[in-house]
Amino acid sequence: MSLERLLQDELIVATAGVEILEQALIDQATTIAAADWSPPAAGTEGALATLAAAGRTEAANATAIERMLAVRPQFVDVGVARDIIPGMTDTMFLHAGPPLTWDRSSGPIKGAIIGALLYEGMAATAEEAEEISAGGGITMSPCHHHQTVGPMAGIVSPSMPVAVVRDAGGDGVAYSTLNEGLGKVLRYGAYGPEVIERLHWMGNILGPVVAATLEYVGPIDLQSLIAQALQMGDDGHNRNRAATSLLLRSLGPGLVENESVPLADRGTVFRFIESNDHFMLNLVMAAGKLAVDAAAGVEGSSLVTTMARNGTDFGIRLSGTGDRWFTAPAPIVDGLFLGAFTKADANPDIGDSAITETVGLGGFAMAASPAIVGFVGGTASGAVRRTQEMYEITLAEHSAYQIPQLEFRGTPVGIDATLVVRTGVQPQINTGIAHKDPGIGMVGAGLVKAPMQCFAEAVVALADTMQ
Amino acid sequence: MSLERLLQDELIVATAGVEILEQALIDQATTIAAADWSPPAAGTEGALATLAAAGRTEAANATAIERMLAVRPQFVDVGVARDIIPGMTDTMFLHAGPPLTWDRSSGPIKGAIIGALLYEGMAATAEEAEEISAGGGITMSPCHHHQTVGPMAGIVSPSMPVAVVRDAGGDGVAYSTLNEGLGKVLRYGAYGPEVIERLHWMGNILGPVVAATLEYVGPIDLQSLIAQALQMGDDGHNRNRAATSLLLRSLGPGLVENESVPLADRGTVFRFIESNDHFMLNLVMAAGKLAVDAAAGVEGSSLVTTMARNGTDFGIRLSGTGDRWFTAPAPIVDGLFLGAFTKADANPDIGDSAITETVGLGGFAMAASPAIVGFVGGTASGAVRRTQEMYEITLAEHSAYQIPQLEFRGTPVGIDATLVVRTGVQPQINTGIAHKDPGIGMVGAGLVKAPMQCFAEAVVALADTMQ
Repeated sequence: MSLERLLQDELIVATAGVEILEQALIDQATTIAAADWSPPAAGTEGALATLAAAGRTEAANATAIERMLAVRPQFVDVGVARDIIPGMTDTMFLHAGPPLTWDRSSGPIKGAIIGALLYEGMAATAEEAEEISAGGGITMSPCHHHQTVGPMAGIVSPSMPVAVVRDAGGDGVAYSTLNEGLGKVLRYGAYGPEVIERLHWMGNILGPVVAATLEYVGPIDLQSLIAQALQMGDDGHNRNRAATSLLLRSLGPGLVENESVPLADRGTVFRFIESNDHFMLNLVMAAGKLAVDAAAGVEGSSLVTTMARNGTDFGIRLSGTGDRWFTAPAPIVDGLFLGAFTKADANPDIGDSAITETVGLGGFAMAASPAIVGFVGGTASGAVRRTQEMYEITLAEHSAYQIPQLEFRGTPVGIDATLVVRTGVQPQINTGIAHKDPGIGMVGAGLVKAPMQCFAEAVVALADTMQ
Repeated sequence: MSLERLLQDELIVATAGVEILEQALIDQATTIAAADWSPPAAGTEGALATLAAAGRTEAANATAIERMLAVRPQFVDVGVARDIIPGMTDTMFLHAGPPLTWDRSSGPIKGAIIGALLYEGMAATAEEAEEISAGGGITMSPCHHHQTVGPMAGIVSPSMPVAVVRDAGGDGVAYSTLNEGLGKVLRYGAYGPEVIERLHWMGNILGPVVAATLEYVGPIDLQSLIAQALQMGDDGHNRNRAATSLLLRSLGPGLVENESVPLADRGTVFRFIESNDHFMLNLVMAAGKLAVDAAAGVEGSSLVTTMARNGTDFGIRLSGTGDRWFTAPAPIVDGLFLGAFTKADANPDIGDSAITETVGLGGFAMAASPAIVGFVGGTASGAVRRTQEMYEITLAEHSAYQIPQLEFRGTPVGIDATLVVRTGVQPQINTGIAHKDPGIGMVGAGLVKAPMQCFAEAVVALADTMQ
């Protein structure tokens, strides 16, 4: 451009960083082009410099992400929690998210523990269940410490049926509860008689029938189902209609033909799964748990291996910092509310289900799932942008999970905590919303971002391991 | 813009129409902005003027499209062709597309008629079947003349099982064959022993079991299934994986529980449908036939009520020109070929399945189905553009069929032949490709456009009705 033209045409000021300077130009009616740049999260400059100087993180991350993507999850069985979950005891109640005590627990966690105590027959009333819990009569422990994940409250009590997901390419195993459906359900903190009755049916009929059906049809390749479902409009977190359909297609021959199970039970189980498009969610989560556990414990790696919320705290863990949690207050979710419920009814973010985002699904795969916006809010084009932004903070594009809308590009997978603090881009999560009080249940679904504070503290701790 | 700026900045010439003038500018290195405009199809100017002067087409089209969209298709039964299809006789063989004689028939039509004669036991060998057909021993009649549609060759013989689709909001009824799967199948012109054996199983087991299952579970709302499937990546023509999954979810409880059917047959039927993601195609087609028949016969209407191909001719019919067909040579399809097959093996375009495009699905709904490009070729962004272009030649946006990728805009539906000749935009069809010789079967799938000549002749004929 000639100097003449430069002086003749309108001047445009390129701006970056501190917004107050940018605003001053806008106030003077100057045209600006703002670059999307922000300095690293406060307090992380030194840690980032230490990690850069040590020069070990890149190789460590390559190892960790390779392990994460090598896992081949298969749905092989359903068992009873007390019999199969490592470290489970008769008075242990697993919960979602980072470690938690009863007194700091949110409404949905308390409601779900009350319901689980009623289901176990350890309490006769909600009041008695609260007394037992408050008096230390139970042990609370995070699902994530027991190769287990649970959506929302994530409560797993000893008698519950749990899905068993094995790594066909290794010796890993992970567990999850079975999905109850939407509305008034235990994981959203409800504990009315219909909730407890459903849990008994799930323990007595659903679990054993699905186990017998899996024995009949053989292991189900979850990675293949999830990959196909992404080409059918699922995101793997809050839209699992396609994956649930494909699961039912896989289980179907056993439900039709396996006469070792009473006909009425096979019919009821078919109808239960058919009526619950979220049934597959818990299996996607267990598949994710298998992947993150495989990626854990690589010295120097800034790969995020856990994002989980207990309704009070949001917590993350990194591959290179072992079992240590980095927490921040759980944020409030923006979303669509059912019936007359509003944001004032909403509990802060809760659940282990952000495991899906941790392995390149959910909010990271929303571009594959334009129809999800009818459930969590936003627009279809916004769903594409959310996925596209996640490529900025991830280490790889998923080798199996592709997004047809993006010309079959792999989903962004493997959150690098150093990229999060450097770019200021927070991981995108979509999620259900529980009522803040115990005993009520689901009030909506929406979108939320993982708090920056967790990532900043984790990066500082990772740098400390380099000293 | 000031005159000074106009003279200073680069000149851009806007061009439209005759390309030779545009090319002259390009050759002189002039920057051009070409408008996407072409004159009406040759020979239609007078007809368009007549229709405009008569002023009846707009109201007639409103009536016709309203009738098309008011239909509520339900899958209610499976019966035997000779018992239920109007006008069917013991020596009648229905075929796809416009009227056809044996001597003008393409390879896949001949192959499928040979196979059907073997299946009916009317011939013992392929040679004998050819002799019977060539000697006038059978009556050939278009499916479309009998409230019926069939994909590819579309052969319906007297003993075949046919799906019955009824209009819950009226008294319409339409029929289609049941889908055999892909590869070596009758509708692609194959007639080997495995093809005939499968047809016998379909007549003896599949048809009766599906009929009994429908009686058990009740009528299945096809419009609801198709609408949901568009939100799950189907286009309703060459991608029906979601709709087939949803159909199986609907039939499932009957297949599990209905003890009036032998267990082994229920199991085999579940596995057959489960293994064929195209099973739903024929039901989508019957639903479409119900819609176009409801819209037929509105005086003055330029709505296209039929687009169908017999492998030799491509034919269309308009609402306002009654039963008259307007034909042109069937085009060759651009696509992806299986194994070692190439375009040289391909038969010209064939099948009644363009009924899906006629009712706002298939090529008109490809924006909902980015993953279809793995089957028919092209790119995901190209699939979106194909749908967007179809809004230029259609009368409405579908009230039930929405495209989440386009922020839930209704699919373009109701082709107006006058818009096709005015804009030069040809209807977009996606389709399977049959081998040109009898006895071979499927060789690929791809994309094709309806020939302009059909629309030009139809518009002239519609204008003649105004004299």
